[in-house]
Amino acid sequence: MRISELARQGGVSVATVKFYLREGLLPDGHRTSATQAQYGEPHVARLRLIRALLGPAGLSVATAREVLGAIDHPPRSLHDLLGVATAALTPPAGPPVDLTRVHELMRDWGWHVDPKDCDTHAVLAAALAALEAAEFVLPAGALDNYVEHVQAIARAEIEGVPTESPAAAVRYVVLGTVLVDPLLLILRRMAQQELSSRRFGRPAETG
Amino acid sequence: MRISELARQGGVSVATVKFYLREGLLPDGHRTSATQAQYGEPHVARLRLIRALLGPAGLSVATAREVLGAIDHPPRSLHDLLGVATAALTPPAGPPVDLTRVHELMRDWGWHVDPKDCDTHAVLAAALAALEAAEFVLPAGALDNYVEHVQAIARAEIEGVPTESPAAAVRYVVLGTVLVDPLLLILRRMAQQELSSRRFGRPAETG
Repeated sequence: MRISELARQGGVSVATVKFYLREGLLPDGHRTSATQAQYGEPHVARLRLIRALLGPAGLSVATAREVLGAIDHPPRSLHDLLGVATAALTPPAGPPVDLTRVHELMRDWGWHVDPKDCDTHAVLAAALAALEAAEFVLPAGALDNYVEHVQAIARAEIEGVPTESPAAAVRYVVLGTVLVDPLLLILRRMAQQELSSRRFGRPAETG
Repeated sequence: MRISELARQGGVSVATVKFYLREGLLPDGHRTSATQAQYGEPHVARLRLIRALLGPAGLSVATAREVLGAIDHPPRSLHDLLGVATAALTPPAGPPVDLTRVHELMRDWGWHVDPKDCDTHAVLAAALAALEAAEFVLPAGALDNYVEHVQAIARAEIEGVPTESPAAAVRYVVLGTVLVDPLLLILRRMAQQELSSRRFGRPAETG
């Protein structure tokens, strides 16, 4: 197909397709003349993946290029490939922090401490520091309870990773991470409303 | 105590205390002369609550005033009081959306559909619409699985609500909501890393 048909099927303008070609996100088509090239189904699929990465996932062009590069030249294990995707979604680490407590917690939870995942460890350390700064003490056992249920959520998610292609696996992990975050947070609010209503809803209880 | 001591104990500047007084967030002290007033422990506690609402919780002064007003003149049930706090933390609803599907889901989950909570319902509708727009299909049973575990999390949280005073309950709910959101999201990333490592970590599996 021509570039105009590719753009139509991908739901973007021809100018956008040209931009992705120039930026090296989308591979060149098969050149048929000095000014024309032909594109195929893999281009349409790639175009949709690019849109998902730059749109909902909110990646920069540079980060998207890195993730797409990992798909095109996948590392030896799928875990390493998914690691590239997760790293692209982790907020940049702030100043170096002491990870001792986080690593102790991880060992308590039976989690392997991999130094190359330290970006996420630093984010957890920052989240715990924010609780402390606000003098908000989690009730006893609350953190372990969070870990237990979040782990059950993650287990189902990792079991659902499609393994037929690196592109499908990365798309699932990137979109599943970014789009499900807000879903989980609003479900938490709504579950709190429901359970608060059950526990505190009757005026008599507080009179 | 004088205003300087109140500021010291609250960890803010005297100018900030005066700002909170002017904005009606902090009640006036007991006036002892034309230019001086005395403050007590309740002022220190209120000052810390104001800081938590404006700082980590990121509320605007106007929204904080509303939440503090609900603490000072609590509604008949604690559920309604917590509703004021939750509403203050819910992103403003976008354009009106069709809530039919969300209300169907809620009934499936055994949740009561309260029209006054429709702000959160609209946010859930938007989160589901974002998945659809990205053509990201949740695996079968995934949504129910999320609800099950998020509900278990919320149950422990609501059971932990301190009931000794409206201020303590609101502080717990507001800080617990705002500060635990990032904690849950990073725990999800880390649990995914851990389980991906267990499932896909060995290069042999993908060779």
